Amino acid sequence: MLLLTRYMHGYTQREAERLHDQSSILEQLLHSDIAYPPGSTVLEAGCGVGAQTVALAKRSPQAGFTSIDISPDSLDRARALTESEGVTNVRFQQADIMGLPFEDQSFDHVFVCFVLEHLGDPPAALAEMKRVLKRGGSMTVIEGDHGSCFWNPETAASRRAWQAMIRVQQEMGHDPLIGRRLYPLLSSAGFDIDEVIPLSAYADCSRPELLDGGINKILAPMMETAREEALQMGLIDRATWEQGIADMHRAAMPPDGSVFYTWFRGVGIRRQ
Amino acid sequence: MLLLTRYMHGYTQREAERLHDQSSILEQLLHSDIAYPPGSTVLEAGCGVGAQTVALAKRSPQAGFTSIDISPDSLDRARALTESEGVTNVRFQQADIMGLPFEDQSFDHVFVCFVLEHLGDPPAALAEMKRVLKRGGSMTVIEGDHGSCFWNPETAASRRAWQAMIRVQQEMGHDPLIGRRLYPLLSSAGFDIDEVIPLSAYADCSRPELLDGGINKILAPMMETAREEALQMGLIDRATWEQGIADMHRAAMPPDGSVFYTWFRGVGIRRQ
Repeated sequence: MLLLTRYMHGYTQREAERLHDQSSILEQLLHSDIAYPPGSTVLEAGCGVGAQTVALAKRSPQAGFTSIDISPDSLDRARALTESEGVTNVRFQQADIMGLPFEDQSFDHVFVCFVLEHLGDPPAALAEMKRVLKRGGSMTVIEGDHGSCFWNPETAASRRAWQAMIRVQQEMGHDPLIGRRLYPLLSSAGFDIDEVIPLSAYADCSRPELLDGGINKILAPMMETAREEALQMGLIDRATWEQGIADMHRAAMPPDGSVFYTWFRGVGIRRQ
Repeated sequence: MLLLTRYMHGYTQREAERLHDQSSILEQLLHSDIAYPPGSTVLEAGCGVGAQTVALAKRSPQAGFTSIDISPDSLDRARALTESEGVTNVRFQQADIMGLPFEDQSFDHVFVCFVLEHLGDPPAALAEMKRVLKRGGSMTVIEGDHGSCFWNPETAASRRAWQAMIRVQQEMGHDPLIGRRLYPLLSSAGFDIDEVIPLSAYADCSRPELLDGGINKILAPMMETAREEALQMGLIDRATWEQGIADMHRAAMPPDGSVFYTWFRGVGIRRQ
């Protein structure tokens, strides 16, 4: 729990770029069909560098967003991004998702994306977000599941490096396999479940840009953020790690590269 | 290559039942949108016990199907099933997919489902099926990918037992991870690719029957077919195996059970 508020992938410029690349690749898949009604108030909890914020706010131009994050630096980046994109319906606020500075039932809706996997106590976060959500309002959660990922060719080294990354996150007390648990998490938090669905991305050499983006701009850079911990924890030796990263990049290449990953989106309604 | 023609999961009554349960659960997902034109001739290569045959033939009542399998016993079961279902547009024939007893360009279309993963040389099988396919005709391939599967709770024992099953199949020279390779397989066989898409099934406790069917009627019984080889090959010890099977059944239970699996469907057109 020591590392509760630490973002596992770090706060570097490279990571910020990775998050934006990821977002533009995934926006269509993950929340292109999410639109909030005019006049409604939406809490985006854990907006980070604003990777999802711009798309979210643009798709619901008449809704008002409050986007919070625990990192002032990330908020600065998010603010700059929305300004450069001409988005005006978002206000940013520094806040901890585990103790939100809002009254009970302050928001019509809550949106949280790629956040619960990085927390030590997702049920407590859900309870806190539910507290500030009005009755009848929706709670939308989007999370990945790193156990869903596979690629071709999948060498032993690339699988071992990937598993080491998962283990690093687990050792921090977080859950990189949280996607498959969204239903019980929302359900036991007392939400009426509207939907819990998998959203999968697949690319092969018929879509070389998507394949390159998925491997070289998202997955391999994400693995790299866990390099030092993986080695220090003795989860993998350096040679296998390097080979694994190289093999992962190979999966972006013709003639036989391919990659698959699944996120989950859950929507719950607060009745009580 | 010794075991080339041996069906990895065996030919027991229980396995036949597993295949039919699997088919009824999956039919909607995997080929509910496949319909062949009236008057067209379709080769179903490797029909097994007819698990897919009935659905396939019923959906294209005016097409004529030739369903072949290497096992006479499986063909008897397939024949009995189609008769009991009142299906009359299928003729069965014992034949080896690696050396089909048909002239070049005999069929308008070819359909193959859950077969390539059990062969020692999928490219040779594709070449042979392409030989008997007319120019302009379609080749439809549906295969699973056991590396795509995950469940909750996913214990170390259940993952180890699952991986042991995968290793057994790999040791036989087959490829249980073939789904992710459909694009390069079809492409290098000279087909024009019409589509290669993932088809995923997900169940949680909001759909208890699907969850029960997926775990208790498909996945766990499939693992059981690899039990003796897995133990004999020393891939896993008996206690871990038994724990793994028990843990897999646990993933079918409330409140937090869930399961995910992905198949791939590829459609290629023969131009030359």
